[in-house]
Amino acid sequence: MNVSIGIDVGGTNIVGGVVEESGAVIRKVKRPTEANAGSEAVLDRITDIVRELRESLADGVDATAVGVGIPGLVDPDAGLSRFAGNLGWRNVPVVRELEKRIGLPVVIDNDVKLYVYGEAVAGAGRGSRHVLGITIGTGIAAAIVNDGAIYHGFKSMAGEIGHVRMDGVNERCSCGLAGCLETVASASGMVRQTRKALREGRESVLRDWFPGDEAFAGLTAAHLSRAMDEGDALATAVMTRAGMLNGRALAAAAMTISPEVIVVGGGGALAGDRLMEPLRNELYGLLLPDFREGLKVVLAENNDEAGIIGSALYARKRMMESDGK
Amino acid sequence: MNVSIGIDVGGTNIVGGVVEESGAVIRKVKRPTEANAGSEAVLDRITDIVRELRESLADGVDATAVGVGIPGLVDPDAGLSRFAGNLGWRNVPVVRELEKRIGLPVVIDNDVKLYVYGEAVAGAGRGSRHVLGITIGTGIAAAIVNDGAIYHGFKSMAGEIGHVRMDGVNERCSCGLAGCLETVASASGMVRQTRKALREGRESVLRDWFPGDEAFAGLTAAHLSRAMDEGDALATAVMTRAGMLNGRALAAAAMTISPEVIVVGGGGALAGDRLMEPLRNELYGLLLPDFREGLKVVLAENNDEAGIIGSALYARKRMMESDGK
Repeated sequence: MNVSIGIDVGGTNIVGGVVEESGAVIRKVKRPTEANAGSEAVLDRITDIVRELRESLADGVDATAVGVGIPGLVDPDAGLSRFAGNLGWRNVPVVRELEKRIGLPVVIDNDVKLYVYGEAVAGAGRGSRHVLGITIGTGIAAAIVNDGAIYHGFKSMAGEIGHVRMDGVNERCSCGLAGCLETVASASGMVRQTRKALREGRESVLRDWFPGDEAFAGLTAAHLSRAMDEGDALATAVMTRAGMLNGRALAAAAMTISPEVIVVGGGGALAGDRLMEPLRNELYGLLLPDFREGLKVVLAENNDEAGIIGSALYARKRMMESDGK
Repeated sequence: MNVSIGIDVGGTNIVGGVVEESGAVIRKVKRPTEANAGSEAVLDRITDIVRELRESLADGVDATAVGVGIPGLVDPDAGLSRFAGNLGWRNVPVVRELEKRIGLPVVIDNDVKLYVYGEAVAGAGRGSRHVLGITIGTGIAAAIVNDGAIYHGFKSMAGEIGHVRMDGVNERCSCGLAGCLETVASASGMVRQTRKALREGRESVLRDWFPGDEAFAGLTAAHLSRAMDEGDALATAVMTRAGMLNGRALAAAAMTISPEVIVVGGGGALAGDRLMEPLRNELYGLLLPDFREGLKVVLAENNDEAGIIGSALYARKRMMESDGK
């Protein structure tokens, strides 16, 4: 049996899995990242996870490659994590260090690119040649998988759709710009908008759910979904606006690259139709008729595991390509 | 010597040229399209142009392939012109018909894609792996050339940046949508905006240049450049807004695909820095710092001939690829 290992390095947790050729995840482990212990400690932890996963396999079965998804700017050709803010990494030679420790071929890439790759080849984009994926979470990022290949662009920076300036949005963004899509349309952005409105005295059922929590620190995107289901006007307005803005940014991206399917994932996608309905309405309303016909806009199928599936299958594909050379 | 032929089919003229491997155009002819005579007549005319070009070559030299750029929706794999509004074409089997008449391998693609390919491999984008090109003319369209390959997308529709909705723009577009970039930021859009302002009584030096022409029918984009050089406030406002809007649309496209160079061509690019300065200012102001560093925004080098150069060199490349199979 031919398996590979996918690792998704997040700011909070590292998730690793053994993935079959079909995309099925047959083993999975999750460990805290503890990024403040430094990059060496995180690389050791990844090494431990890989060892644990390999030891769990049946006799005679082993992984052929390891794919690692890393947030931020990644140089996949050089094998470097150029910059990962939430890990505190800058120019960490991940491939060299991991190959030394693990003894298997290691492939790295940006985590969103690998997530979308996973959805493109073994999830909601399966069977489509042109996939645009977007993850709506703490931030918003996109990736393009075209004819089975991740589209990287110059400095591998393609997909920074979360920082497109949106009209009518004025919030400062952590990137230094203002009016970025993700300031109001990411899961965190929605929560931030809601907290602000609540602190400004806006009426909402959410007010009753956080007695004594004047900063509404406990509020999450899941609360917004629940409040929306109870007909709450504030939650509905925030979610609807986020859906519309995502739809608007995706319309511009879609007319630029012409995807066959747009896959929406990340924590924000857990809102389902609450977010997808305004997103789709806005998107389809802005597209040229030829784009409207045939373009599918769907939720990710493996929201939790697309990262490790994509990392594992991409490592497998890259290894086979280099074998073929 | 190894040469190929490029043909650029426009609504008014067909231009054909013999192109060397280097991109040098060594012969060129131009004939009226006369599209209302029907697609068969236009295909015959292309055939005549190819014959004339081949006959002009020195003994022992012949073209190895013909590339044809066609406006509108093209299916390059099927060899079909799906829809070309200004030619009145719908599902014309261009490759089959031309190969029958010419007896050489024929490759077709969308005219803007081939124009940008020409600039990418033998013009202002030479040496860059990730090229985004935009043509600002009657309409606005873009194309992506990535690692030497034209990016097509689903139904080969990538690049319809002219129909991205821009805030603050309300004009109806011929496509059926409203607020499309090209309604005000194309060369035609700029002229239309200026005529409208003049008819509404706006002061401008342009008023003196068209005595008795109450509809300002003779006004062209070139007049706007001239008026701007004389310090005319109306022309300056129209051109500056067009530059800004193009810059804004390009910023969103750039963060989506991360080009290394953006090439600006088409009739509107003849305005040079008058258009490029507001375009660059807006674009760079909207980009994430990592995108700002290293991204070049330049005028096309072969504005008049990039279409035939790209068509010829792309046909050559495609033919060599299929030989290699």
